[in-house]
Amino acid sequence: MAPRWKGKAAEAKAVADPMSKILSRLQSSLIKSNSEGLLSGSSVLLSVHPEQNELLNYACFGRPIITAEKDIQWFQLSLEEAFYLCTVMKCIKIVGGNKCIKNEEELWDYMSSKKSNFPFLCKAYCHLRTKNWVVRAGSQYGVDFVAYRHHPALVHSEYAVLVLSEKEGNGNGRLSVWSDFHCTLRLCGSVAKTLLVLYIDKNGEGDFSPSCLEHYCVEERLVTRWNAERSREIQSCNSST
Amino acid sequence: MAPRWKGKAAEAKAVADPMSKILSRLQSSLIKSNSEGLLSGSSVLLSVHPEQNELLNYACFGRPIITAEKDIQWFQLSLEEAFYLCTVMKCIKIVGGNKCIKNEEELWDYMSSKKSNFPFLCKAYCHLRTKNWVVRAGSQYGVDFVAYRHHPALVHSEYAVLVLSEKEGNGNGRLSVWSDFHCTLRLCGSVAKTLLVLYIDKNGEGDFSPSCLEHYCVEERLVTRWNAERSREIQSCNSST
Repeated sequence: MAPRWKGKAAEAKAVADPMSKILSRLQSSLIKSNSEGLLSGSSVLLSVHPEQNELLNYACFGRPIITAEKDIQWFQLSLEEAFYLCTVMKCIKIVGGNKCIKNEEELWDYMSSKKSNFPFLCKAYCHLRTKNWVVRAGSQYGVDFVAYRHHPALVHSEYAVLVLSEKEGNGNGRLSVWSDFHCTLRLCGSVAKTLLVLYIDKNGEGDFSPSCLEHYCVEERLVTRWNAERSREIQSCNSST
Repeated sequence: MAPRWKGKAAEAKAVADPMSKILSRLQSSLIKSNSEGLLSGSSVLLSVHPEQNELLNYACFGRPIITAEKDIQWFQLSLEEAFYLCTVMKCIKIVGGNKCIKNEEELWDYMSSKKSNFPFLCKAYCHLRTKNWVVRAGSQYGVDFVAYRHHPALVHSEYAVLVLSEKEGNGNGRLSVWSDFHCTLRLCGSVAKTLLVLYIDKNGEGDFSPSCLEHYCVEERLVTRWNAERSREIQSCNSST
């Protein structure tokens, strides 16, 4: 399925300013200002300057929180977003209630304690983000994430992403019965998204430290209807499904 | 959600000829002709006369099979449909490969061996059919059944039905995680159906005989969005969700 741009101008705008460049600008800006996120339950609060506000919005991290403060904008980041900005992009630090900066291990422990499948969701999130996909929560479609080619204002999300793992069968128990499979595929079809299943294989590694993430293996499977037309000899031989 | 009739004439037609009457006519006709269904894998084949053909179609049992025979029409019944016609409506007999008529226990054993969750699906099917709902397979919506107020030619299906049980958690593992729940609800909403969850409680009975079916308890739960408007004092007090 081709990306569904929100108009020709949107596509041109995205091509002119690719997500990788936006992320670089965001990274430099956050590093320069020594940005610190504050652990708060199952999210991380980050205060930023107006310029960074725009960059965070454009790069689609977190959601802005309305406060009475004038020059500071607060953002609520999900655990995966915060972990990514902190440990992969290395552009923010994260502090706990005691104002001490948490190291990777401490963050990992805290986040895994808040969300039992955090290691898998985090791996999947980082996997897609490093490929410059914009990743947002997928709960409205009953999946873990949705992935956009660029900012949601410019393009519709292309993939509905389910993260499965070998843990306890398949992690969250999704797609283990046909009716669930049918339901998910039908819904994806009706909202014009392709179902992307990311199987996270721990390769025998435990959940004990963030360094395990590197050893986790991600297997990507697209689930689509098979189109018999595609195998006809008249069509290009390369367009196999 | 109100039933969505396919036009005014459709509603009038349904009111003039309610499903209960159609079922009575079908029952008398099948009894009169000593109809016999033939067990065939996971379905039952039934041959009928042209008049019964029309009644089976109108009552929505099975699906007609095209053959070269002129005066006989074959129908392929699902296991639940065949069990219902045989043991609840008592209007057909079912024979095995050896041409011997199967009693209820033999049918139950055969059908349960073909489909591990047959007892629950069967209870749910019978539960809805005895209330004169038209019940069809729901696989295209990722649920067990869909339920219609009358024939599908006259009205859209109103309910998407999931059958859960206490067996192994909840039978087929559906709705045990939020993402599945969100997915199912979103899909039901997009096809204008209400999610009906039938919880089958075995009341400690085993799966050993069809007589257990009577002791199975069915708990009906509708899952819908709560509409805050409904609780406002301006509205009728009776319209609670």
